[in-house]
Amino acid sequence: MNKEDYGHHISQQFNAELEEVRTRFLAMGGLVEKQVGDAIHALLDADSALAVAVMDNDQKINLMETRIDEELVRILARRQPAASDLRMIIAVSKSITDLERIGDEAAKIARYAKALCEEGESPRGYVETRHIGNQVRLMIHETLDAFARMDADQAFKVMREDSNIDVEYKTATRALMTYMMEDPRYITRVLNVLWVLRCLERIGDHARNISEQLIYMVKGADVRHTSYEVIEKKLSGSA
Amino acid sequence: MNKEDYGHHISQQFNAELEEVRTRFLAMGGLVEKQVGDAIHALLDADSALAVAVMDNDQKINLMETRIDEELVRILARRQPAASDLRMIIAVSKSITDLERIGDEAAKIARYAKALCEEGESPRGYVETRHIGNQVRLMIHETLDAFARMDADQAFKVMREDSNIDVEYKTATRALMTYMMEDPRYITRVLNVLWVLRCLERIGDHARNISEQLIYMVKGADVRHTSYEVIEKKLSGSA
Repeated sequence: MNKEDYGHHISQQFNAELEEVRTRFLAMGGLVEKQVGDAIHALLDADSALAVAVMDNDQKINLMETRIDEELVRILARRQPAASDLRMIIAVSKSITDLERIGDEAAKIARYAKALCEEGESPRGYVETRHIGNQVRLMIHETLDAFARMDADQAFKVMREDSNIDVEYKTATRALMTYMMEDPRYITRVLNVLWVLRCLERIGDHARNISEQLIYMVKGADVRHTSYEVIEKKLSGSA
Repeated sequence: MNKEDYGHHISQQFNAELEEVRTRFLAMGGLVEKQVGDAIHALLDADSALAVAVMDNDQKINLMETRIDEELVRILARRQPAASDLRMIIAVSKSITDLERIGDEAAKIARYAKALCEEGESPRGYVETRHIGNQVRLMIHETLDAFARMDADQAFKVMREDSNIDVEYKTATRALMTYMMEDPRYITRVLNVLWVLRCLERIGDHARNISEQLIYMVKGADVRHTSYEVIEKKLSGSA
């Protein structure tokens, strides 16, 4: 299935509705991606105003989720979609939940950024935050890009990246824990960074979930809770 | 809308399918509730074998999610449900994602429980874990009970309980952070309990999400991102 397949309906209106859902999904994704980037910048640059802006923007994302869900229900009730259309509706319905939760995590990171501005910097953890933060942002970007191009192979690539992030998250956490034991004066500050790293790790999980939904949408295969080997076979086999 | 409304279809088969979805959802919920309970017990009783059992059981929950989703897609494609039937399908589709993630959190708690068995107990945090753990389990139980009885008012009650848990989680976290600063020898162990508390707080969020979906299913009102005052009005107004 590729993007052009959504132009196959006799009803021009139905085509337009599906295209509208795609557009809104990508717009929501774009805002979520920006929120994550801004939250990380707020932290790294100790920019309290930017942190507050990220927190305020979160309700825009919530509203987008609600609107898209309304549209999906309307399409399900009126158009009774089947096959690939139905899979797209379901995939978007599940994915916007993940997008919204990425938005929540971005708002949380912003809160910790604000706390670090007010209570003082952490003596450790910024290098790790920048590094894992960049990877996670790239994951979101690649997921949305894969969605725009209906690219299941790229979605699978994103899924694999999540495993790297989990490893780096664990390494970073262990280093920060060791540091806290050696110098317990800054435990509160270091913990703020630890929470941020955990938020980033969650964002990676959510991006992975969206990629799984994308593979379902394009290939019709449910690849949740499935090993990489089995997914690889499914992707190389007949769609 | 009440439970009996699902018996209104001319097609006996369609009735049976919707009832089957309800039954499977409640079975999945029951297992998830048990997993959370067992994970907390594994931690409090330092029962390493129980912790391992919880981790192993997680894939049963994953399988249940996959099966229910398959059934939902089948119903959407064949029966083209409308109105309250469609809302039920959507609500279950979103809620099983939350149930599955509660299952993930239970498995994580079990992992920390195992670590605490192997690396030694935390000197603090068990009272808080027991207390918040009990509340969270009750939330899951009440949510499932509200689902079984199509009780939107009880679902709203669960939503409110989540706010209490957030407050208690913050208090407990602060106490443990203070303790770590005063006695940094046990930072690693205390952090294991801190992560558990965070898992419990997340479980509360997921139970709240399911309650929101239940209100949507019963009342047709999307109450996500909505203040308690507005929800109260929607619930007391005409369904």
